[in-house]
Amino acid sequence: MKALILSTNDFEDSELLVPRYRLLEAGYSVDVASGQKGIIRGMHGYEVLVDKIFTEVVPAEYAVLVLPGGKAPAAIRKDPKVFTIVHHFFGANKPVGAICHGPQTLVSAGLLRKRRATCYHTVAKELQDAGALYEDSEVVVDGKLVTSRQPDDLPAFLRELMKLLTLKGVCLPDEYWGDDAAISFKAQSRI
Amino acid sequence: MKALILSTNDFEDSELLVPRYRLLEAGYSVDVASGQKGIIRGMHGYEVLVDKIFTEVVPAEYAVLVLPGGKAPAAIRKDPKVFTIVHHFFGANKPVGAICHGPQTLVSAGLLRKRRATCYHTVAKELQDAGALYEDSEVVVDGKLVTSRQPDDLPAFLRELMKLLTLKGVCLPDEYWGDDAAISFKAQSRI
Repeated sequence: MKALILSTNDFEDSELLVPRYRLLEAGYSVDVASGQKGIIRGMHGYEVLVDKIFTEVVPAEYAVLVLPGGKAPAAIRKDPKVFTIVHHFFGANKPVGAICHGPQTLVSAGLLRKRRATCYHTVAKELQDAGALYEDSEVVVDGKLVTSRQPDDLPAFLRELMKLLTLKGVCLPDEYWGDDAAISFKAQSRI
Repeated sequence: MKALILSTNDFEDSELLVPRYRLLEAGYSVDVASGQKGIIRGMHGYEVLVDKIFTEVVPAEYAVLVLPGGKAPAAIRKDPKVFTIVHHFFGANKPVGAICHGPQTLVSAGLLRKRRATCYHTVAKELQDAGALYEDSEVVVDGKLVTSRQPDDLPAFLRELMKLLTLKGVCLPDEYWGDDAAISFKAQSRI
C-alpha cells in the first residue's frame, strides 16, 4: 500500500520525517511529491529526495495523504495540481492528515467548510474565515480528516491517523516473532 | 509504562525525536536524561527539555532504553552513571535500542562482546575491536538488543524495537474506534 506526502522546501522537518518514518515502519511505500524533481530541504536542514512531481502523481494509487507544515504549504497551496490531488482524497473519503501549516492547503482547496479541524495557532483565523470549526486541541478527528497543531502533537496526530489505516505497524502477539512485522491486526486475524 | 533516552547536546535530531514520538504514540511516558538539567540541542537545532539528570534516573522504573546517535554518545559514553544505567538494562534483559553512534555507549560499558550489532559505518571498527559481531544491515536484533546504522534505518529500527515491547501502539481491529489507542495486541486480546 502507498502513502503520499505533499511538500516543498522549508518544510517543518519533524512534521515530514516523523510521519514518513511511521508509515514506512507500518509497511507503506511512501512517496514525497513536490513541484519539481530533486532534493527539498527542511527549515532545520534535513534533505528529502522528491519521488514524484505533482503532475506525475496518480492519487488513486494512494491510501493516505499527509500534509506537513513549515513554510512549504504557503508555496504549494495554490498549485492547481495540488488542488486536484487533495480533492481526490476527500472525494474518495480516504484518510488525510494535516499538521501545523499543512491545513492551509485544505483551506485553499475549499475543503474545510463546516469541518472540525486544528492547525498552528497563527493559522487559526484563516481556518475560521474559511468556515472551519476550529479547535485548539492536540488532535482533531473529523471523519477521515486528522489535524494537529505543531510538532509536539505528532504522537497524538499519528495515533489517530494510524487508527484510520489498514496497515498500523507492529500488531502481533508477543508470542509471534516472524519476519513480517508490517502487518495489520486485520491481516493478522486472517492467518 | 516508561521509556528512557540517554543523550546530550549535538544529538542526531531525528534519531532522538522519532523514537521519542513513536514511544509516546504507543503510550509510553518518555524521559530524556542527560548530564545536566535544561535544554539539549540537536545537530539540526531541535531543542529538547531534559527530564532527569543521570543521577536522578532509577533504571528499574523503565521498560526500554534508547541510545540515539550524533556527537552526543562521545560526550556521555564514559560517564560512570551512564555505565550503571545501561548495565541495569542488560542485566535485567530489557529491550535496548541503539542507533548510529549510540552503540559507542555500549562499547564503553563493555556490553557488546560476542553480541551481534550494527552502527554508523565510521564506528564499525570500534565495535569490532570491542568484540562485537558487526553486520552492515539496516537493523540487527540480538536478543533484546536492537541496533541500526543511520536515520534512514529508523523504520526498521523502530519496527524491531516495538516488537520487543508490551505497548506497541495502535493495534486495534478496524471495527474498534475507542479512545484508548495506546493499547497492545496482548492487552486487546484480553478484552
